[in-house]
Parts: sequence; C-alpha cells; structure tokens
Amino acid sequence: MGADLLTGRMRIGAEAILGAEGELRAIDPSTGAMLEPVFGMGSTADVDRACALAAAAFDAYRETSLDARAAFLETIADEIMALGDVLIERAMAETGLPRGRLEGERGRTTGQLRLFASVVREGSWIEARLDPALPERQPLPRADLRQRHIALGPVAVFGASNFPFAFSVAGGDTASALAAGCPVVVKAHNAHPGVSELVGAAVQRAVAKCGLPEGVFSLLFGAGNAIGTALVSDPRIKAVGFTGSRGGGTALMKAAAARPEPIPVYAEMSAINPVYLLPAALAARGAALGKAFVASLTMGAGQFCTNPGLVLAIDGPGLDAFVAAAAEALAAASAQTMLTPGIYEAFVNGTERLAAHDRVQTLAQGQVGSAYCGRAAWFETDAEAFIADEHLREEVFGASSVLIRCRDAAQLRALSEALDGQLTATLQLDDGDLALARELLPTLERKVGRILANGWPTGVEVCHAMVHGGPYPSTSDGRTTSVGTLAIRRFLRPVCYQDLPAALLPTALADGNPLNIWRRVDGVLQQ
Amino acid sequence: MGADLLTGRMRIGAEAILGAEGELRAIDPSTGAMLEPVFGMGSTADVDRACALAAAAFDAYRETSLDARAAFLETIADEIMALGDVLIERAMAETGLPRGRLEGERGRTTGQLRLFASVVREGSWIEARLDPALPERQPLPRADLRQRHIALGPVAVFGASNFPFAFSVAGGDTASALAAGCPVVVKAHNAHPGVSELVGAAVQRAVAKCGLPEGVFSLLFGAGNAIGTALVSDPRIKAVGFTGSRGGGTALMKAAAARPEPIPVYAEMSAINPVYLLPAALAARGAALGKAFVASLTMGAGQFCTNPGLVLAIDGPGLDAFVAAAAEALAAASAQTMLTPGIYEAFVNGTERLAAHDRVQTLAQGQVGSAYCGRAAWFETDAEAFIADEHLREEVFGASSVLIRCRDAAQLRALSEALDGQLTATLQLDDGDLALARELLPTLERKVGRILANGWPTGVEVCHAMVHGGPYPSTSDGRTTSVGTLAIRRFLRPVCYQDLPAALLPTALADGNPLNIWRRVDGVLQQ
Repeated sequence: MGADLLTGRMRIGAEAILGAEGELRAIDPSTGAMLEPVFGMGSTADVDRACALAAAAFDAYRETSLDARAAFLETIADEIMALGDVLIERAMAETGLPRGRLEGERGRTTGQLRLFASVVREGSWIEARLDPALPERQPLPRADLRQRHIALGPVAVFGASNFPFAFSVAGGDTASALAAGCPVVVKAHNAHPGVSELVGAAVQRAVAKCGLPEGVFSLLFGAGNAIGTALVSDPRIKAVGFTGSRGGGTALMKAAAARPEPIPVYAEMSAINPVYLLPAALAARGAALGKAFVASLTMGAGQFCTNPGLVLAIDGPGLDAFVAAAAEALAAASAQTMLTPGIYEAFVNGTERLAAHDRVQTLAQGQVGSAYCGRAAWFETDAEAFIADEHLREEVFGASSVLIRCRDAAQLRALSEALDGQLTATLQLDDGDLALARELLPTLERKVGRILANGWPTGVEVCHAMVHGGPYPSTSDGRTTSVGTLAIRRFLRPVCYQDLPAALLPTALADGNPLNIWRRVDGVLQQ
Repeated sequence: MGADLLTGRMRIGAEAILGAEGELRAIDPSTGAMLEPVFGMGSTADVDRACALAAAAFDAYRETSLDARAAFLETIADEIMALGDVLIERAMAETGLPRGRLEGERGRTTGQLRLFASVVREGSWIEARLDPALPERQPLPRADLRQRHIALGPVAVFGASNFPFAFSVAGGDTASALAAGCPVVVKAHNAHPGVSELVGAAVQRAVAKCGLPEGVFSLLFGAGNAIGTALVSDPRIKAVGFTGSRGGGTALMKAAAARPEPIPVYAEMSAINPVYLLPAALAARGAALGKAFVASLTMGAGQFCTNPGLVLAIDGPGLDAFVAAAAEALAAASAQTMLTPGIYEAFVNGTERLAAHDRVQTLAQGQVGSAYCGRAAWFETDAEAFIADEHLREEVFGASSVLIRCRDAAQLRALSEALDGQLTATLQLDDGDLALARELLPTLERKVGRILANGWPTGVEVCHAMVHGGPYPSTSDGRTTSVGTLAIRRFLRPVCYQDLPAALLPTALADGNPLNIWRRVDGVLQQ
C-alpha cells in the first residue's frame, strides 16, 4: 500500500466519487504547508445519494445475524490495521500529533470496534422481553407480548479534529451505530481528509468483503455547514453523532429539531472538567499535585474534551505549594503543535481574552514555540467573577486552565452548584476529605457524567462502565455516553410484537431462545 | 371520606393552596352542567414554589433505598384505593365514562404503581456496571470504573383527558418518574380537576406517611398554556411527560428545546393505528372482522390513543362482507358521551371535514345521541388521496375511521411506506398471508411501536414487554415507551465513578453486591 491510496475521493456506497463542489486540502500544522492530494467536496446531490443508499441498506443490515455483524466490525478493524504505516504517517502530517500517540489511538479505535463486536455477539443490547400469554387471566386474558430493540435508521456522523481515529470516520459513533444495525454516513472533518479517505476506504472494503449492502457506509467531504445541514435535514437520517464545538453541536441540534420529523442528536461539545483539591490532600501533597496537574493539562497540547480547565480549592495549607509547583512545571512546558491553524488561533484568542480580563490574573505561561504551537497558560480568578461572567466558564480548547481559591467549603459548594454540565469532575482527596467529598458528591452527580478520585480526567477508557457524556452543555443529551459499550443504546428503539405467529417472530424473541441471549421473561432475567 | 375531600385546592409540597389566578369548574359532559367546587388556578409563583420544593427534595429522594421507594409507590396505590367510591363517582361525573370502565382503569393504575414498586425492588434499572482495575495492564493500567443510572431530576407531568387515572395525576408518567427517583410536578388536566385533587391529595398523604421530603410531589391547576410553559421552562425541571394532542405535545417540545438547557420531552401525541386486512384472513372471515373492528372502534367512544383510525385492505374476496358487516354494526352503534365539550366539538368538526372531502365517501354513521354524544363515523378514501393530503392522515380523536381499498400488494406496501409514525399496526392474517405479512413487517417495524396479529390495538397491557410509543409524530421520541416497565428508563442517566474510595461509592456499586442486584462485571451479567 502506498500514497496512491489517497485519491481525494469520497466513498458513496461502493463507489469512489470525486466531489465537484470545490476543493479541499489538508494542512500540515507543524509547517503550515498544504498537503497533496486535492480533495473534491460533495454536493447536496451526493448527500442525497448517500442517504438513499443508506435507507436502501437499512432493513437488510439491521437484520444481519449477530455473528455477521460482529465479523463486519472486526473486518473494519483488520482493514484499518492493514493500512499500516501509511495511515500513521498521514495522520502525523495532518494533525501534528506524534507517532506514539497516534499508534495508541489506532489501537484504541480497533479495540473499540472489537469490543462492540463482542457486545453484538453477546446480544443483551437487544433487551429481549417476553410476557407470555395468560389466556385464563380474569377479568381479561393477557396477550403474548414480546419486545426487542431495533436499530433507529441511518445515522449521520460528524468526526472530531482532535482524535483522527477514535472520534472520526470509524470512531466511537460509527462503531456503536454500526453495532446497533444502523447504516452510517460520515461527514469527514476537514482537518484530516487524508486519514478520512484511508479509513473510509477501509470501511468500504470491509462492507464488500462481508457481502453487506453497499449503503451501509458512505463518507462525504464538504465545505462549511452546507453538507452537514443537508445531511442532518435528510428525512432518511434518523440520528446524529457529533463531537466538536458547542457552536457546531447546537447548530446541529437546531437543524434536527426543525425537521418535519425531529431526530435525536448526540453531540459531545465542551467542558472545563473541574478538579477539586480537597484540603487534606492538598496539605499532604500540594506540590506533587501541582506537577501532575500540569502533566494532564499539557498532554497532547491540551486538546482533549476532558482537559482540566478549572481547578477549585479552599485556601489553606498546601495550596501555595500546589501553585508554585504547577507554575514552575508550566513555565517549563514546551509549546506543542496544535491540530489546525484555526484551533491555534482560537486558543490564542481565548488565552489572550482571559489574560486581559480585569478579574483574571495570569499565574504562569509555558514556553513559546514555532507557528501553530500553543503556549500553555494558567490563570486565576475569584468565585464571584466566575459565577457572574459566563465567558470565564467557557472552554478554551487547548492547554489553558483557571484556578479559583475559595474562602471556605460553603463557597466551594456554591461554586459547584453554579457549574454548567460537565463531562467529568475530579476529586483530589485523602481520608480527611471524605466528609467534604460526601457533601460535594450529590452536586457532582447532577452536574457531570464521570466522577474521578485521585486521578486526572484526561484518558477515557473504552469499556463497559465508562460514561463519556454529561448534562448540557457538555453534551446535547446527558442520558447517554459516546464512549463505552452503553453507547450502542443511542441508536436503538423498542418494538413490541403482540400475538405474532411464530413464523413471523424475530429470532431473538422466538420460543426456546435460539440465540441464547439474556432475555427478561415475565420480568425475570434469564438465559 | 366524602365530598369535603374536594376543596378546589392545589397541592404544593405539604400544603393545600387555593390558586388565585382565576377559577376553574369541572363540567359533567353528559349534561353540560357545571360541577362544584370551584378550583383556584395557580400562578407562575406557584410553579416556582413547586419546582423549588422538587429541587430541594431531589437529592434525598433519589437516594431512598429500593425498599423505601417501592413502599412509597405501594402506599400511593393504597391511598388511591382508600378514596373508595368517592373517586369513582367523581370520575363518572367529570368524564362521562361508565363505572365499570373507571373501576377497571383504577385497578390498572394501582397495578401499575405496584408493578413499578416491584421493578424498583428488583434493581436492574440501576444498570450497575463494574470494570475492575487492572493495575498490571500494559501499556497502561486500567482504573476501577463503576457505572450506575441515577434519576434525571424533577419531572413535569401533563395528564391526559381520556384516562383520568391511568394517564393522569398518578398515572404511568408519574409512576415511572417516581420509580426512577424523580420528584414530580403535575399540571392537572382541566377536564377532571376533582379527580386530580382527590388523587393528588392521596399522593400527598403517601409522601407524608412514608416520611419523604414534601417536594417529591406537587399538583397544580392552571388555565391555558401559561402554567404549562412556565413549568417546562423552569430550570429545575429536567424532563417532561405528556399525553395529549399533537399541538400540545409539539408546543412543549418547542418550549423544552428553547430553554438555555434543553430537556427531553416524552410526549405521546397522536396516531391512526392502521389495521391491515390481509387477503386470506379477509376471505375466511370478512364479516366477523367487520364486527370486531367496530367493537374496537367504538369502545369508550373511540377515545383511545390506539383507536383503529385506518383500515387497509387489498380489494378482493371478503372485503365487501367486511364492509357490509362493519357498516351494519356501526349503524347500530349507540352514541356515547365524549369526555369534554371541546373534544366533542373537535370530533364533530373532524368527521364533518372528512364527510365533506371530495375524495372521501361516508360508509356508515352510528346512532345520534344527546348533547356531547359522539356519533361514530366510517369513511373511505383512495390511496393516492391519502398519500397526497396530510389532513386525511390526521387523527380524528373519537370513533372515526377511514378505509382504503388497495389495488394490489404493491400499492399496500407503498401506502405503508407513506404512513407517519404510529403507536400500533395490526395485521389480520391467516396462514396464507404469512408471505405478505413478512414483506410488510420491515416497514411496520420502522413505522410503529407495537405490531399486533389478529387482535385489536385498543387495550394496552401494563407489563414488561409493552411498547406504547412509536416514531414521530405518534410520540416526540420513538426511543421509549410511556406504558410498561421500560418507561422508567426515560427518567434516568448514567454516571461513572472512577477509582472512588469504597467509603464514597453508592451502595449499588459496592464490592460484594450488597443490594443483590443484577450487575455487569467486566461485561458479564451476574447477580
């Protein structure tokens, strides 16, 4: 395999189509240089074609056997690995991310596909429920009632810039939607069109190898919002997965709500992920916490949804040591290439706005770097200003964070109640902090999707218990997660069958449990 | 207990408050007479007070033990039964529904509360997931990750007119929200304020008897949309349950989406519930099907969400017999008192509009009755007109239905694809119809929440496998059900705990499974 894999073409069903609505080039953010090839951007007619194929594929794809669907997900993983170093090198060129990080992310992405394959095979996601007929019941007999979950329909997926594999063309949204039985139409992120084409072609090959209908997967390139809006507005699309900015996510929410048939939008948008330094922990290891905080803040140029953008502490022993150690570590932190010139500029604007704010002091700044390298920044403000000014509560995407010194526990609790919805909250605590932590927990449970103790929020495990989600505005829908196996549920809905003849019943609901899956019979879970 | 139970007062937490924003009287639809007493309608300040109490109660209520919460639901059921005949007689006076129907509905309502109590005790709804730490894993260790579902927050419930018990103050939305751990603020339906006060007071007594925070439940009266909009817009309300018209439901959807923090709306709105008469069944028992159809259509004056408002058949043997038998039965059907003068007038307008439509023929009309008695009506139109004119596809709430004779199976399939989302679809079929049914099923699965064979859609079992829901516009959210135990999930969201000390972990996630609930450990379901 080599560079000839990059043709600039979209993937619409089984075809490779060169879009005719303008051109797109990737940029190497470490140099600002334009990369080959030229990508052709799609038209609304291309959106229409992809959605028509997805709708045509839907009924057949959602009824594939558990084994067949699982094998498809595994084949996608195999095809991604088969791209070899071409994929990693293109990703390095398009994102400025280092090889180690990208190889790790590729492993996470293929692992995610294989994990969803195991979920599909296990079959609990069908949530089969059987309430057998009670013909003798008084005063009225009960019919035979059986319920399963089926796929929602074709899903539009919008990849993120910061995870070119794990939250992109074959990332978590695509994996969970395909696992649920939904065809997927991906709008590629313009920051990494080459990676998108390579991975899109890998998925396309997997569709063909597995003998699935071509419409199970399409990949579109497009400028600005035109293609995205057309995609979300297409009546054949039944749900949307998105990871990106709050502006982008809320625009999709509005478009989806304005349709004649509104559809769910799963948008993972923004968070500042408060870290609480509780008094005993701070007194015991303020300096160590300061160093560890900066390591989490600056990792990957801070370009994580779960980056610790807010540190909360009660003024007291250890806090000065924390600040001194963190400031020292931050001052030594190298500038790192950011994902795109646009992200770099937004970061510079965001940190400059904070630095110029009359209620904000700059605590430390990192090293200066070359073009498009983000200079880490750490600020302090006070609780009243933070509560009063929503701009102080907004995410600055990148290695930027704000410290608030609270007078006492009461102010810390009040501040917690004033927080917007968040992906995570982190408690740095020792035994002496348990009582305060217990006071804070109910608030945090209402505000966030994941609560950590004595760790750092960056790093999201792909597993069964993960929640990468949270109340609005961290996501559009706090009832779900975009990482972990529960994500499959976003793309399912229940259907009930009443007194259906055995010949018409779905296999998952047949007498004798031929799929050997967990089923709830008369309310009792059994296998 | 006697008539002094009716005071015209709202229930806000532990108090009984006479609203000062205008007066409301119930009307006996069988006579048009105004009933005593006068109900005082609430202000936005009353909404604010109810929501403040609900928010204050939330953290404590959502952490009640499984037993305590189940006992609360059972106590509500007991308190409703303790109202005795006062409740039934008031309901008869306010709704025009007969005693037998109301006694049955009361049993369904208390049974629903007891079923949710059993669901709460069983504990699967928590969906506990544990992924134990893997400290030795390479290249990175895995943290200890545990997930549970917690309640969303205070829920606003809007009762329906047609089920004064089962879809009202202590109906399915309230029962499932309370089961999930959400405080509930009910806006009473103005058609049955007396029943609402009686049941609201019963819930209030149950709150007190169980020693729960007063804000767990409030009941408001209000005019028009003002109270409803204030309730849905209140920032402390985190979800909405509604059963009623499409206009009412979509207005709530808009209000909820326009909030600074959008929230989910579970609105069950409208459906025409197609019934398919497949050829072999029709040939074998056309006349019997005609009679059974009319029995389903006219039951309860046709005032059911699942009323069969559309009959689809391929022209052929048995269809004339079906039409003749149905027309004969319908012509003999007594007019029945409708729920409210407003519903009666909408029904008259709807049937008159159909009768006057130039592509519609009237097949039969029922008996004429006294004031506010709906006269059943049956119409025929053609497939092209039905597909072209959305007004022909709208629900006429009451005993009104439309027949479409299709030329062939292809037209029947095309018509099915043109249907809006529905609560139910019913197949009348014999062995000779299995092939055609198999062709139709994928479309029906995409269009409806419940598929029945050889039954009638009216009558919704409260059980584990029921789906009373369906794609938009039958509901606002086809991913759920408003009847059956799955309804609890509407009011839950997942939270993940990472490396939390044992002292801080919720009991449901503690080592050793002290609640003895089903949990998923490393992906494997176990108890």
